[in-house]
Amino acid sequence: MKACDDHGNIELLCFDIFGTVVDWHGSIAREVGAMCPGIDGDAFALAWRAGYRPAMQRVMSGELGWTLIDDLHRMILDELIAPFGLGHLDEAQRRHLNSAWHRLAAWPDSVRGLTRLKSRFLISTLSNGNIGLLTRMAKHTGLPWDCVLSAEVFRAYKPDPAVYLGAARVFDLPPHAVMLVAAHHDDLAAARSCGLRTAYIERPLEFGAGHPKDVSPDPLDTFHARSIEHLADLLGCVA
Amino acid sequence: MKACDDHGNIELLCFDIFGTVVDWHGSIAREVGAMCPGIDGDAFALAWRAGYRPAMQRVMSGELGWTLIDDLHRMILDELIAPFGLGHLDEAQRRHLNSAWHRLAAWPDSVRGLTRLKSRFLISTLSNGNIGLLTRMAKHTGLPWDCVLSAEVFRAYKPDPAVYLGAARVFDLPPHAVMLVAAHHDDLAAARSCGLRTAYIERPLEFGAGHPKDVSPDPLDTFHARSIEHLADLLGCVA
Repeated sequence: MKACDDHGNIELLCFDIFGTVVDWHGSIAREVGAMCPGIDGDAFALAWRAGYRPAMQRVMSGELGWTLIDDLHRMILDELIAPFGLGHLDEAQRRHLNSAWHRLAAWPDSVRGLTRLKSRFLISTLSNGNIGLLTRMAKHTGLPWDCVLSAEVFRAYKPDPAVYLGAARVFDLPPHAVMLVAAHHDDLAAARSCGLRTAYIERPLEFGAGHPKDVSPDPLDTFHARSIEHLADLLGCVA
Repeated sequence: MKACDDHGNIELLCFDIFGTVVDWHGSIAREVGAMCPGIDGDAFALAWRAGYRPAMQRVMSGELGWTLIDDLHRMILDELIAPFGLGHLDEAQRRHLNSAWHRLAAWPDSVRGLTRLKSRFLISTLSNGNIGLLTRMAKHTGLPWDCVLSAEVFRAYKPDPAVYLGAARVFDLPPHAVMLVAAHHDDLAAARSCGLRTAYIERPLEFGAGHPKDVSPDPLDTFHARSIEHLADLLGCVA
């Protein structure tokens, strides 16, 4: 853990969501497994998530117009129907499965950690997920956001600087008064290049127990924490 | 009170803020009075608020580029400095006074009413106030929003249809599954013309005790309530 000496002026904590605050892999694997017994839920969750970046890239390159993540998730799902033998799912079932992203379960430390951090900081989402998805997820899971910021507000996806700088501008703050909290080094590096502080959260099981993730620290991060509760400890927020 | 028979499918309640959820007149009069003893706080609050619509009109007409309400409030404040004899306020004091809009006090029923409504509906702001202002106000006052939607998200001010229809689109809902809650008939009429349900909240003292407001019902509203708690009663949300 490296802590900047001058982090005392941080006012806003922005959180990446998928993988950082909620367990997309376990949640998607469980939902599809309940709906389609016998499916390889682990492989299905990984495949759905793997389509995410290429789909956003199609939007950012201009090949697709601005598209909400809900709609990108559906496009990717439609491509997985045949390879995973899901042709028996009717339209209502496909819509329900797509909305599984609204019901992702929080990591066990997320709600307690966020509640502690909220006592001292503004806490907001800063996700490529759309506002409706993030709001419904928060309500479902009990995430106590002060604000739901999304790529949808800025019409750009992370790691576009417009998202990180947009979050600072929304709150009329200099970038160094904002800290991005994420479980992904590339997201944090992009935020840092915009002048934001960064906190890495270890989520070794983001991709499931069968695919442990390297969670080695990056010395450039302002904080490195084992969990959101641990981040609250590091920032001196009372339990 | 008129209740539609078919309001059972409402999922999202969007709230006007200034005057509906918070008491801008009393709060501004108190803040300026504390800062500048002897000032006519009532007249000052009314004058500041009176500049609001013309300022938004300058943006919507294209005379000004897109401008956040924080910045419009500051432009109006600067015009009130001379007439109200506030030339002694330094820049820090003017900034502090401008941020009084972030600290508006809730009406006594707002937090309890919203908390009850939140148990059954998605509840969001839908205000011309900017996201930062609305978020800081909510944190200051304890307003338990699921989501902070603002004209800033849609780059249009109410009563532009883009705002009302934008709120429905954000949540992938048909307009009739959304209800605007407001203390202003013109806001509600504009929402209704977009297909939203409407609920009027009586705020007879919005403009101060010296300027009581007519709060007669409009039969076109889906609900007419004496307060947000009364709306929770009408919608069957438990106390």
